[in-house]
Amino acid sequence: MDRRSFLKKAGIGSAAAASAAAASFPTPAISQGTMELKMVTTWPKNFPGLGTGAQRAADRITALTDGRITVKVFAAGELVPPFESFDAVSQGTADMYHAADYYWLGKHTAYAFFCAVPLGMTYAEQSAWIAYGGGQELWDELGAGFNIKSLLCGNTGTQMAGWFKNEVKSLEDLKGLKFRMPGLGGELMRQIGVNVINLPGGEIFPALQSGAIDGADWVGPWNDLAFGFYKVAKNYYYPNMSEGGAAIGLGINKGVWDKLSPTDQEIFKSAAAAENSQFYADFNANNAKSLNTLINEHGVKVSHFPDDIIDALGKAAPDVLASAATDDIGKRIHDAYLKSRDDYRGWSQVAEPAYVRDRARVLGS
Amino acid sequence: MDRRSFLKKAGIGSAAAASAAAASFPTPAISQGTMELKMVTTWPKNFPGLGTGAQRAADRITALTDGRITVKVFAAGELVPPFESFDAVSQGTADMYHAADYYWLGKHTAYAFFCAVPLGMTYAEQSAWIAYGGGQELWDELGAGFNIKSLLCGNTGTQMAGWFKNEVKSLEDLKGLKFRMPGLGGELMRQIGVNVINLPGGEIFPALQSGAIDGADWVGPWNDLAFGFYKVAKNYYYPNMSEGGAAIGLGINKGVWDKLSPTDQEIFKSAAAAENSQFYADFNANNAKSLNTLINEHGVKVSHFPDDIIDALGKAAPDVLASAATDDIGKRIHDAYLKSRDDYRGWSQVAEPAYVRDRARVLGS
Repeated sequence: MDRRSFLKKAGIGSAAAASAAAASFPTPAISQGTMELKMVTTWPKNFPGLGTGAQRAADRITALTDGRITVKVFAAGELVPPFESFDAVSQGTADMYHAADYYWLGKHTAYAFFCAVPLGMTYAEQSAWIAYGGGQELWDELGAGFNIKSLLCGNTGTQMAGWFKNEVKSLEDLKGLKFRMPGLGGELMRQIGVNVINLPGGEIFPALQSGAIDGADWVGPWNDLAFGFYKVAKNYYYPNMSEGGAAIGLGINKGVWDKLSPTDQEIFKSAAAAENSQFYADFNANNAKSLNTLINEHGVKVSHFPDDIIDALGKAAPDVLASAATDDIGKRIHDAYLKSRDDYRGWSQVAEPAYVRDRARVLGS
Repeated sequence: MDRRSFLKKAGIGSAAAASAAAASFPTPAISQGTMELKMVTTWPKNFPGLGTGAQRAADRITALTDGRITVKVFAAGELVPPFESFDAVSQGTADMYHAADYYWLGKHTAYAFFCAVPLGMTYAEQSAWIAYGGGQELWDELGAGFNIKSLLCGNTGTQMAGWFKNEVKSLEDLKGLKFRMPGLGGELMRQIGVNVINLPGGEIFPALQSGAIDGADWVGPWNDLAFGFYKVAKNYYYPNMSEGGAAIGLGINKGVWDKLSPTDQEIFKSAAAAENSQFYADFNANNAKSLNTLINEHGVKVSHFPDDIIDALGKAAPDVLASAATDDIGKRIHDAYLKSRDDYRGWSQVAEPAYVRDRARVLGS
C-alpha cells in the first residue's frame, strides 16, 4: 500500500474545497444528548477490506451506543485529502481516522512500528505487544505529542512480496529490476540493488503492461486480484519481509477521547478490538479464496522468494529499522519493539507454523 | 485440556448443593432497569488465560452497558459442576457459559468442530469460517436444538503435542507408550498404537514422576510451565495435530438472548469478538515468555514430532473426524468445516508461515 495510490484513486479535489467542507462541520457535533463524530480514512469508499473495515468499526460504535454516538465515515478526499487525515484529527477538523500508521512517517518515523516494519511483527505478535507488551503505552506517549489517542483496529496479515513479469530465481535476477514498492519496504529493496520506483496503485497495471516496470508489490491476493495484475505478470512471490502484518490504527482526537465517558471509552476500545479480530478474519477468508482463484483460474505461479534474496533483505533490515528511530521516544519504541519481537518470535516459529506445514503434508498438498 | 481435570481442580461439592445454589438465583434477575446475568465456566477461578479471559469478557459486557447488565462469573463448581454448564445454560439455571465446546461431545459430537478437531482449523481459519464461511449459521442451527446461542470468544492458538520422559525419535518409540491425552485427540493417538490414558490435569505431575505414565499433553507453555511438568520430563514436542487452535465459546441461553435489545445483542457480539482477539494475544504473549523460560531456565528440549508420527496421525484423522458426524446436522457441519478448511489452508501455508520461518533464519535463530 502507499500514499499516492489512494490520492489518485480517490479523485481528490483541491485542499481548499476540503478545508471549506471541514469548516462547515463543527467537531464534535452534540445535540439532544447525541454526538456525531467524523471518521476520515485513507481508503476509497468501501475499498475491499480496508474501507469496509473502517465502515464496520464506525457502525459498531453507533450500534453499541444505540445511536447515541453516530460515526460518519468519509472516504479518502471526501472531507480532507487522505494523507492529511492525521493532521485533521490532530487539529480537530475530524474526530478520528482509520489508517495504516506507517503513512505518518513524515510526522514521526516511529509510527512505522505501530503498523509494519522490515522483519517486524505478525498480527499475533503485534496484538500481543500492544495489549501485553507495553506497546499501547508507547503508542499513547507518541500520540500525546500530536493530540491523538490510538487503538489497534485491524491487520491485513502478512502481505505478498509482489508480482514479477519474469521468474526471479536468485538475488542476481533482482539487480537493477524496475520494481514498484513504497516506504521502508522500498528502501529495503533499494539496499539490495533493486531499482525501486514509486507509483500509485492505479498506475501499476499500465506500467506493468507497457514494461515501464518489471514488477510491483501491492497488498495480497484479495486486493491484487481486484487490480488484475495476473493479466500482465504471472509470477507471484511471498513473503513480504517488510509487511509481516500491517496493523491498522484508529486514531482519535485526544480532546474528543478525553471527553468521552468511561463507558464510551470502553465502547471505542471494544469496537476497535472486535474489528482487530474481524478485519483479520475478513482478509484471511478473502485472501484464501482469491489465492485459489489466481492459481486455478488464472494460471498464476506462486513461489517462495529465493533464499539469497531473503538473506540480503535480512542483512539490510537493521539499518533501515534504525533509521526509523530518530529521537528519544523513537529509540525507546524501536528498542521495545525489537525486544518484544524477539521475546515472541520463538513461540511464533514453534507450534502454529509447524502445524500448518504438517497438516499440508499429510493432506497431500 | 479435558473435563475431569477441572472437576478435580475446582474441588466440586455435591451436585445437590450446586442445584440448591442455582435455585436461589432466578434467571435473569431484573430490577430497576438493570439485569444480573450469571456466567458459568468450566475453569477454576482466574485460571490463567481461560478463567481470566472469561472474567474479562464478563467485565466487558458490564462496562459496555455502564453496569445496566452485570455479569457475575462462577468458577467451575461454584454454581453447577463445570461439565453441567451446558445443561445449566440450556435450561436457564445459568444465563451463559464460557467454555471449550468440545466438552459437549456427549450432547452432540458436532460441537467439536466449534472448538478443535484433528487436522482442524487454526485461530485465523476458525475466525474466518465463523464470520465469513457460514460457520456462525451452522453453530446457531446446532445450538437452536439445545436452546443455546453461541459466540466465538477466544482461542488458545495451536497447542503443544506434549511432554515425554524419553526422547521420541520415531513412530516406533510411541508404540505402547503410556500417554495421557483426552477426547478426539486421545482417540487419534490410540489409533497409531499409543496406550492412551486419561488423567485429570492435577494428576499428571505425580503420574509422570512415579512413572505411571511416560508422557502427557496439556495445553501450551504458559499452562504447562505452571504445572511444573519440566521437573519430571524434559522432552517437549510440537505441534498438537488435534489442537491446531482451540476456539472458546460463549454460550448464551436462547431465551435470554432473544430478550436482549438489538443494542445489547451488539454489545454481547462485540464483547465476544474483542475477547476473541485479546484472549489469543494473551495466550501468545504468555506462551512466548513461558517457552523462553522453559528452554533457558529449565533446560527443556523442544522438538518437532518426527515426520512418521505426523504421517500416521494424518492417515488416522479422517475416520476420527467422520466419527464426529453422526446425524444430518453433524454431517453438514463436518462437510462445511472441511470444505472451508481446504478453501483456507492454501493461503494459511503461504505468506505468514514463510515469513516467520524466513525471519527466524535471517535473524540467526
